[in-house]
Amino acid sequence: MKTEAVRIARVYLTEADHQLNDIMQYLHDNESISGATAYRGVEGYGLSGKMHDSSLIDLSFDLPITVEFFDESNNVLMVIKHLKEHFNVSQTISWLAEQHQ
Amino acid sequence: MKTEAVRIARVYLTEADHQLNDIMQYLHDNESISGATAYRGVEGYGLSGKMHDSSLIDLSFDLPITVEFFDESNNVLMVIKHLKEHFNVSQTISWLAEQHQ
Amino acid sequence: MKTEAVRIARVYLTEADHQLNDIMQYLHDNESISGATAYRGVEGYGLSGKMHDSSLIDLSFDLPITVEFFDESNNVLMVIKHLKEHFNVSQTISWLAEQHQ
Repeated sequence: MKTEAVRIARVYLTEADHQLNDIMQYLHDNESISGATAYRGVEGYGLSGKMHDSSLIDLSFDLPITVEFFDESNNVLMVIKHLKEHFNVSQTISWLAEQHQ
Repeated sequence: MKTEAVRIARVYLTEADHQLNDIMQYLHDNESISGATAYRGVEGYGLSGKMHDSSLIDLSFDLPITVEFFDESNNVLMVIKHLKEHFNVSQTISWLAEQHQ
Repeated sequence: MKTEAVRIARVYLTEADHQLNDIMQYLHDNESISGATAYRGVEGYGLSGKMHDSSLIDLSFDLPITVEFFDESNNVLMVIKHLKEHFNVSQTISWLAEQHQ
């Protein structure tokens, strides 16, 4: 099993940002990131300290959204830098991992 | 791009635990964790070996829930210790990452 | 607080694969993995470059699914190898973490 070093990036958004589609399209079209996945949280709070939850299902439009993608480490660091320049991204973290091919 | 070392914690719960709101409130109020996100899985099994799934959508109330937060490494380890003292938390994992500011 | 080294695995699928239940059952029955969680993304794209999203809620059946589990590092690497032999798994990544008991 061949293994390659990669870096996983996670970008924190909220549904109220309305930035998800633009960021996905940007990763795909402008950065040639070969895969990305967005997850919606069921509850969360962020820098504002405000709780975001879905207790009123379908009435809450400000749930946390996290976008994750991975690639060669230096490329991921460059893409994170670009995302911060082009979008209103508050929190971004990343960590090293291995891809198994 | 300034980068800081952080530790990401992940706490495993299930919906049937009914502990999610208390834990989120605890992280926010008692531990000054600046952000936390809860995700609901669509299927899972844990220490009990019992499968939790959502095949009967809206009828299943025991889906897996994971809570994630990150902060300075030693602080996260202390918070995990406190969570284990105050709540019925079975599984907790953590790993090192970097925050990009 | 006792801490053990573990490796977290993440396997990328899509709903259209219809492999989720078989993989969960396989991890539980054949590999003795003590816990696994599956998450459904709200949007994503993969090797095909095709966007998968849920903009037509309940009409989209090709959303991204990620399965995560953790165990002792060598065991996880062996299970990933087996999953690639038995299932049509495109992308698999893993990273080191710590379990807090």
